[in-house]
Amino acid sequence: MTRFTPYIAGVLMLGAAAPSLAADESKADEQIKYRQSAMTLVKTYFGPMGAMSQDKMPFDKARVAQYSEILAMLAKLPVDQYPAGSEKGDKLKTRAKAEAWTDGAKLKQVNDKFVQESAKLAQVAKGNDVKAIKAQIGAVGKTCKACHDDFKEK
Amino acid sequence: MTRFTPYIAGVLMLGAAAPSLAADESKADEQIKYRQSAMTLVKTYFGPMGAMSQDKMPFDKARVAQYSEILAMLAKLPVDQYPAGSEKGDKLKTRAKAEAWTDGAKLKQVNDKFVQESAKLAQVAKGNDVKAIKAQIGAVGKTCKACHDDFKEK
Repeated sequence: MTRFTPYIAGVLMLGAAAPSLAADESKADEQIKYRQSAMTLVKTYFGPMGAMSQDKMPFDKARVAQYSEILAMLAKLPVDQYPAGSEKGDKLKTRAKAEAWTDGAKLKQVNDKFVQESAKLAQVAKGNDVKAIKAQIGAVGKTCKACHDDFKEK
Repeated sequence: MTRFTPYIAGVLMLGAAAPSLAADESKADEQIKYRQSAMTLVKTYFGPMGAMSQDKMPFDKARVAQYSEILAMLAKLPVDQYPAGSEKGDKLKTRAKAEAWTDGAKLKQVNDKFVQESAKLAQVAKGNDVKAIKAQIGAVGKTCKACHDDFKEK
């Protein structure tokens, strides 16, 4: 919990005092754009690894080693990106469910799991056990799905 | 494994540089979306620090320490996100200049500078010298501007 304290302080302040980064963008849209951008990055690096784990594309060890490092890094981005007021966009549409605002404890829990499994993948991917690497990609994929099931509209 | 099949289903198309993540999205648009997403994240974390360094918002040491760590991490994302074919989007507009494709050496050079100055900021931000921290935020800002000047349309 202490680990998150500075961030929480930062988030409260962000809501209160952050300058609008684009004059023509509402605060809600700015927040939605941020969340979607973070997901685009996660998807970019996880996607090919997921396909490799299911033998839907050739396994490329060097690429998995690089992408898993990046994914573990991205997983650690602050999770508290669902401040009040960003449940609905002005110009942008969000597919985040209401639960992201009403069940922060669970959101943190599933995010922690994603952080853990991604870190483990980055470790396993340094080795040569392709079967273990593929299995761990699957474990990360399950954390993606768990969060999407609970917090993302279809 | 089968649990996350639906998620994977959308991410199977693969090119050398970028996997196709959405069936209705062209490869060029996908690449542009990735680049813009990465920039959105960079802006989200650099923006408030830039404002603090210019006394446009109150200096918050804990927040700068956290954001500078994240920025240093984001700075290390692979720079090779300008593959041939992504000079122009289908549905999306890019403001990347032609030089991003014709002067890869310089692009790498300015990116390396961004990586270095961001890493230095994350170090300086661990200390208590607010003047030095603000100066280093300024140094990072210059690397943003240098790249935008050469590689981004106004």
